[in-house]
Amino acid sequence: MGIQVGVMGAAGYAGAELVRLVLGHPDMELAAVTSNADAGVALADVYPAFAGATDLAFTTHDDPILLDLDAVFLAVPHTAAMAVVPKLLEHGVSVFDLSADYRLKDAGVYQAWYDIEHTSPELLETRAFGLPELFAGDLASAAATHAAGDPVLVACAGCYPTATSLAALPAIKQGWVADAGAIVVDAISGVTGAGKGANQRTHFCSADENLEAYGVGKHRHTPEIEQILDAKDRVVFTPHLAPLKRGLLSTVTLPLAADFAGDDGLNADEVVAAYREFYKDSPMVRVLDAGQMPKTSSVVGTCGCHIGLALNRRAGVLVAVAAIDNLCKGAAGQAVQCANIVYGWDQRRGLPMVAMPV
Amino acid sequence: MGIQVGVMGAAGYAGAELVRLVLGHPDMELAAVTSNADAGVALADVYPAFAGATDLAFTTHDDPILLDLDAVFLAVPHTAAMAVVPKLLEHGVSVFDLSADYRLKDAGVYQAWYDIEHTSPELLETRAFGLPELFAGDLASAAATHAAGDPVLVACAGCYPTATSLAALPAIKQGWVADAGAIVVDAISGVTGAGKGANQRTHFCSADENLEAYGVGKHRHTPEIEQILDAKDRVVFTPHLAPLKRGLLSTVTLPLAADFAGDDGLNADEVVAAYREFYKDSPMVRVLDAGQMPKTSSVVGTCGCHIGLALNRRAGVLVAVAAIDNLCKGAAGQAVQCANIVYGWDQRRGLPMVAMPV
Amino acid sequence: MGIQVGVMGAAGYAGAELVRLVLGHPDMELAAVTSNADAGVALADVYPAFAGATDLAFTTHDDPILLDLDAVFLAVPHTAAMAVVPKLLEHGVSVFDLSADYRLKDAGVYQAWYDIEHTSPELLETRAFGLPELFAGDLASAAATHAAGDPVLVACAGCYPTATSLAALPAIKQGWVADAGAIVVDAISGVTGAGKGANQRTHFCSADENLEAYGVGKHRHTPEIEQILDAKDRVVFTPHLAPLKRGLLSTVTLPLAADFAGDDGLNADEVVAAYREFYKDSPMVRVLDAGQMPKTSSVVGTCGCHIGLALNRRAGVLVAVAAIDNLCKGAAGQAVQCANIVYGWDQRRGLPMVAMPV
Amino acid sequence: MGIQVGVMGAAGYAGAELVRLVLGHPDMELAAVTSNADAGVALADVYPAFAGATDLAFTTHDDPILLDLDAVFLAVPHTAAMAVVPKLLEHGVSVFDLSADYRLKDAGVYQAWYDIEHTSPELLETRAFGLPELFAGDLASAAATHAAGDPVLVACAGCYPTATSLAALPAIKQGWVADAGAIVVDAISGVTGAGKGANQRTHFCSADENLEAYGVGKHRHTPEIEQILDAKDRVVFTPHLAPLKRGLLSTVTLPLAADFAGDDGLNADEVVAAYREFYKDSPMVRVLDAGQMPKTSSVVGTCGCHIGLALNRRAGVLVAVAAIDNLCKGAAGQAVQCANIVYGWDQRRGLPMVAMPV
Repeated sequence: MGIQVGVMGAAGYAGAELVRLVLGHPDMELAAVTSNADAGVALADVYPAFAGATDLAFTTHDDPILLDLDAVFLAVPHTAAMAVVPKLLEHGVSVFDLSADYRLKDAGVYQAWYDIEHTSPELLETRAFGLPELFAGDLASAAATHAAGDPVLVACAGCYPTATSLAALPAIKQGWVADAGAIVVDAISGVTGAGKGANQRTHFCSADENLEAYGVGKHRHTPEIEQILDAKDRVVFTPHLAPLKRGLLSTVTLPLAADFAGDDGLNADEVVAAYREFYKDSPMVRVLDAGQMPKTSSVVGTCGCHIGLALNRRAGVLVAVAAIDNLCKGAAGQAVQCANIVYGWDQRRGLPMVAMPV
Repeated sequence: MGIQVGVMGAAGYAGAELVRLVLGHPDMELAAVTSNADAGVALADVYPAFAGATDLAFTTHDDPILLDLDAVFLAVPHTAAMAVVPKLLEHGVSVFDLSADYRLKDAGVYQAWYDIEHTSPELLETRAFGLPELFAGDLASAAATHAAGDPVLVACAGCYPTATSLAALPAIKQGWVADAGAIVVDAISGVTGAGKGANQRTHFCSADENLEAYGVGKHRHTPEIEQILDAKDRVVFTPHLAPLKRGLLSTVTLPLAADFAGDDGLNADEVVAAYREFYKDSPMVRVLDAGQMPKTSSVVGTCGCHIGLALNRRAGVLVAVAAIDNLCKGAAGQAVQCANIVYGWDQRRGLPMVAMPV
Repeated sequence: MGIQVGVMGAAGYAGAELVRLVLGHPDMELAAVTSNADAGVALADVYPAFAGATDLAFTTHDDPILLDLDAVFLAVPHTAAMAVVPKLLEHGVSVFDLSADYRLKDAGVYQAWYDIEHTSPELLETRAFGLPELFAGDLASAAATHAAGDPVLVACAGCYPTATSLAALPAIKQGWVADAGAIVVDAISGVTGAGKGANQRTHFCSADENLEAYGVGKHRHTPEIEQILDAKDRVVFTPHLAPLKRGLLSTVTLPLAADFAGDDGLNADEVVAAYREFYKDSPMVRVLDAGQMPKTSSVVGTCGCHIGLALNRRAGVLVAVAAIDNLCKGAAGQAVQCANIVYGWDQRRGLPMVAMPV
Repeated sequence: MGIQVGVMGAAGYAGAELVRLVLGHPDMELAAVTSNADAGVALADVYPAFAGATDLAFTTHDDPILLDLDAVFLAVPHTAAMAVVPKLLEHGVSVFDLSADYRLKDAGVYQAWYDIEHTSPELLETRAFGLPELFAGDLASAAATHAAGDPVLVACAGCYPTATSLAALPAIKQGWVADAGAIVVDAISGVTGAGKGANQRTHFCSADENLEAYGVGKHRHTPEIEQILDAKDRVVFTPHLAPLKRGLLSTVTLPLAADFAGDDGLNADEVVAAYREFYKDSPMVRVLDAGQMPKTSSVVGTCGCHIGLALNRRAGVLVAVAAIDNLCKGAAGQAVQCANIVYGWDQRRGLPMVAMPV
């Protein structure tokens, strides 16, 4: 029976992944899926993977049923999210928002990067940031709010910030990282990261057998990463597109403080040990042995994150690499994980944890 | 009739690409192809792409015909190259070596990274380094040597060093780059870069739909990049594998010196202008407009290199991205380009310059 | 706690998929995984997708624990299976065999196609054929045997025979198909179908961006298809390899009997209706509307089979197309489905039924 | 300087491939490229592969320069072709048409399959059919027409008909094929075959890791194949889409006449010998040894066609498999080949014949 949930923007890739996860969740019932462009069409006609699993059809974003649900997962673009969040909250509906609208604490930074004024900046004070391994406090507060009978707003972290921060933050928290100097984030995403829109970039014949960087120096996940890492103007974020569907690998090069660099500095095993201690209560994260590097294929379809660490004493840096499924841990899965915590369930409930072996 | 050439190690991917290029070269005649493992087998039986184009069969590496040729392209592994180069030179045969054996000027550095003593270190003094856009002088000397009737040894640059250095060196030569701080090189290669050996890494079902970093901090192209950039212990090189056959993208993040960073520093257009000036005599290199980024698919099958540049004033870095075909400009094509220069021909002769549009 | 099961040959692709399914099955406990080549190695070291999900390590095929289990899934090559099946049965262990050893009823046909004498032909009389939608009786008998306290042997159908027969048999059972003339089966498989062995065929750089037919006229699934369809010497089976990991599409062209061909013959809707009636108790099979064709991506990772039907009156044929995941419905999933039936559970238990939407 | 040619519809995939080939042709000069949608844009901005090779920009289809050229390659959709062909011919411009408009001899068949009335049926009498290996007479006549100073119209064969007919026609001409019974053509194409239009079918995330049949029983290449094979209502053509860019494999199953089937019928070697005799003057076609099957990767980027043959005596059929590059031999390359013949040059002139080995 469980809670009644809706997915707004269910025709997009993150929305469809939410549908998959909600359909398999023992305590959630999928009550509504919306897509203005596909209203009236059966979900299974757009995604034949769902044939036999649900008879739901898309309704429009203003479907009144949404206001009667326990929770809504928002998989609409930024600005479309802040257009509906206040109303949902007023009606007592909890919101797990996958868009960027409530991620940045500072409305001015939002305006600078997204080029539009924020219409409900007061919610930035109270929303929880949805990246449970790094913002446990936010989610504990949200759980308390829910327990008190109030709706919650969780602004789920973006895909690149999730992988990048999981790779980088433990080292920063340990005090290993120098106070100045660029933190270089070179990340690679599968094409689902470019969205469901059909255009020349996402055409099979453009993306196949090709590698390219995009949005260099301008990608809107940059301020989000800087906010999480508390590293203003230090993050150099260069995303790349590669020919695969799902999977995101973020390679972060962190300059080490003088005390930790060089031959008398850190050693590889203590780096791994510290990361494992940091994530000891985080079942989604797996820190690999020193010398091992993660493969995105090992986490595709799951909410897991695998992290590999390579200390480079010659150059005085730590290279931390994280692999996630951009649609699952990087989007829909993380939203469900946040909901699990808010509702007081095991954070893994309903979430796939074992990838296909091949 | 052109010069008589041989390809040693012609069964590997770089060797096979050499065969393709030599077969299409108006001034070269392919006289021998060797592969100890495939001796006696027709070239076209291993590579059906060559069916109808040649009737040559593989012979072994000790085929005496090699000693009578004008030039030999060496596509054998390191150590196998230095085992044959002195003898070829003694017989007056010019050598264009794709292996790592003669790239590093310092035999001690070679021993440190390749874990074996160099057996002909004296040749390191005289060999030309095969990366024409950056070492024109080396190739001019080699051309003079050839003109004087002597055989030459050209140590062709590796695939990652080629793309990385073409992206980074102009900025360094301009004096824009800070004297200290890591130069971060995150590069991505197609699976041909992992070689023809069939193993679990190169199995289709491992490489497909997967991203991973490998050899982090340990890749042997690191000292070669540092040698070219004159940046000892500053290069942090992290190579990645992505699911495509050919193509290599190197993303280099260069810390800017204080004078050139910030709002009063460089601007994007002057960066592009300086790179274009630097490469004005290099027909293989194309510097894209500011804001444009290269696609590997635009250069696959050709000897071209496309470079994109993004100045990041916030973080005080220059991000330079180069795309090449790892087997062509990164290996076989560059070797032929070097040979063209040594023999006094247009450096483009016989080299494909237009990729398939899709 | 559920039954105790083992997977022999768990390092191969079908074996690894069995591990995934057994780990997720609420009534099975994975007690042993064997691989002679990987004995002593942790399962998760070979398949990092299993990291965190199991600590099991491979043992050898003669691990005595196997003889104490409730059931063993056999994912070893043909001949290796018949070498161990009699002993397992003697010890009261039920066997679900994915190899070809017990599929063909006639030991002479086995010998003709597999070029080796069958060593336990007596078991061919009693084994159940593991393709539940078409051989419900076999599995009912096996369930009765199990209920009576005896071990069972189920010879699970091969991947091509499964898809092909699910597409073709309903039409044959309806009497629509002509008594003579070739039944043309052109099927396409992903590269997992070629197995985990690393060789030049399975190298990424050979399989990527390539299409080819293989084993034309000689593939050993031919007699198995002919046995199921009761169509001796009429099946022309041409398998093809395409660049994807998982997924198998079988396109079957069936010549119609005169009464059913032409303008007065069948119509598209009655074909669909008859198929749906045929499969009305088969939850794994989905018959698409007339005019719809299945996509393998809609069933990857699941035990589903999607069937599309196109009546061609001009040429007097029915084209039936089935899509499955070759490793799941075509191998491991089907074995678990058979086990579910034998043990009296819902045939879907523990089996993924919803694919990733993208 | 060679002839002056234009490419209408140069922004599409076949058009862009024509540009590649014309740029590399020693006797053609590219004078105009048209695309109504891209008018004013530089060719190299749409296809960066052409950067440095040409400065041409797109003009519109009514660019008057077209009427002054020697020849125009038409890569526009059907109906758009017949809208311009008569005018081009009137102005003395020879036309090599890649569309379907002039392929079918019978305007009624055209109307039945393309659902529109033909506007210049009189040209169907005189146009040459552009498939040189099978219609040498047509092209000889066209060459004579050109030699007499008149413009020619060549209707180049479609991609599927080209591969299918090259595989099937020699057997039919030999009289081996039965007079009745379906000729089953199951063909697989890369995604360039679906065109440059960005839509959900061509989105990377739909096409990648997927196999599907499409247009089953309705594909418009069916009457074209039947016309070439002279096999009305006998061709069952089922095209499939697989995740690669270029490459087309057609598997044709031909029922043998009684005299040629069975143990006293044909043998594999005489089949190969007859095909080799048939194609002895066709340098683009390579008939493989008995037992060998072609790979599309061996012909990608070239105008070659590789054919594999497997006699199946059990079932009384011949399976003939042809591999081509759908954009080159299946479209642009064949058009250039036809032009070479019309202009009296070696049919291979300017056409790539050696594929990349990997």
